[in-house]
Amino acid sequence: MALKLYDLAGEEEERRFSPYCWRAKMALKHKGLDFETIAWRFSEKEVIAPFKSTTVPVLVDGANSVYDSWAIALYLDEVYPSRPRLFGGGEARVLADFFSQWVLKSPQAALYRVIVLDLLGKIAAGDRAYYRESREKRFGKTLEELAADPKARLAEFRASLDPVRPVLVQNAFLGGNGPGYVDYVLFGAFQWARCVSPIRLLEPDDPLYGWRERLLKMYDGYAWKAKGYPVWA
Amino acid sequence: MALKLYDLAGEEEERRFSPYCWRAKMALKHKGLDFETIAWRFSEKEVIAPFKSTTVPVLVDGANSVYDSWAIALYLDEVYPSRPRLFGGGEARVLADFFSQWVLKSPQAALYRVIVLDLLGKIAAGDRAYYRESREKRFGKTLEELAADPKARLAEFRASLDPVRPVLVQNAFLGGNGPGYVDYVLFGAFQWARCVSPIRLLEPDDPLYGWRERLLKMYDGYAWKAKGYPVWA
Repeated sequence: MALKLYDLAGEEEERRFSPYCWRAKMALKHKGLDFETIAWRFSEKEVIAPFKSTTVPVLVDGANSVYDSWAIALYLDEVYPSRPRLFGGGEARVLADFFSQWVLKSPQAALYRVIVLDLLGKIAAGDRAYYRESREKRFGKTLEELAADPKARLAEFRASLDPVRPVLVQNAFLGGNGPGYVDYVLFGAFQWARCVSPIRLLEPDDPLYGWRERLLKMYDGYAWKAKGYPVWA
Repeated sequence: MALKLYDLAGEEEERRFSPYCWRAKMALKHKGLDFETIAWRFSEKEVIAPFKSTTVPVLVDGANSVYDSWAIALYLDEVYPSRPRLFGGGEARVLADFFSQWVLKSPQAALYRVIVLDLLGKIAAGDRAYYRESREKRFGKTLEELAADPKARLAEFRASLDPVRPVLVQNAFLGGNGPGYVDYVLFGAFQWARCVSPIRLLEPDDPLYGWRERLLKMYDGYAWKAKGYPVWA
């Protein structure tokens, strides 16, 4: 029986932009597991309440359910150990935890300010008032204030990625020889942007450009085929 | 025959503050290798020229020599594979590379502005003019401008460490069950500060405080005994 993943959807049901859901979807592809996604909107809290969660992704695997993208990744490596590993061992898992914290607080936080107004326009119409109110309360600013001075916001995002660039000059993936969960964590942020915004985030001479392209093409172009905007000409 | 490490010294020969040399010294301790340090000052470029290096640390291991702290760590795991590993495997090594880039660009860069004037006072008297000139040229600011508004500088340094804190709530070391090279990379920055400045960088309720204490006490208090300032009462 295929696994099921509750996956954040926009106004159009096939627009699936959540960076955390992208982490989980790429992790499921990495493991080679069959899964189906179930479109979910912010207003449907009661649908995932039986799984003790208020956010997606939620993974349902027969009688088991797991929420939170990090917990889902740990679950997949624990329950399906004979399939390709998402983490390269104990030390790598601790460093992957650090990496996820860094993505959240640095590039993904900077990227949010680049794409937030585009994102708002793609969210389900019935979710927009909730979304604006909850985020403006969290940040203590209007979404328009967060997005102000777009050129500076884009420059901040690009600068936030500086620690990754020398690593991707030396390595095709952050996971070492092949992609690992850490790649999907950062890629989730790029895919979030690609699903909602036409903005050109990277120049072709950026080491991240080729890395993103490799990930977009993996698993028969799974991420590339997702509803969104093209990222290369 | 003991290994030799060229180690940056201050005006007092026993004050050894370089964060990169601390990475190498802790790595050598981790491997359980006997080594002696050789005091070196910025003005002694000709001493390390035979090893093709212009900076320390330089490790001399019989007929082999290696410079650059990262290259030294890779060398030690490669040449002494039966001793405790500094890196937990291929993926962990790539993530350790990322972690080192992050330390350099984020907390260590922020810490530099906190301690730079204290540091200048501890550098060998004959090195200070060179040091000021080369650093002011690199940053395009005077050292005093870099250090201006010390409260804001300390707050920036502490904030820069945010991605590490949740990881150290869950784990005693970044290396997983025990310390790994990544711990020494970040610890090198703290030890750099401790060797030259009395500033209180961390509060006792910070998850980093206990982590630093564990590293100071390791290897029979090797880092703790180094000439510097106490970091706990």
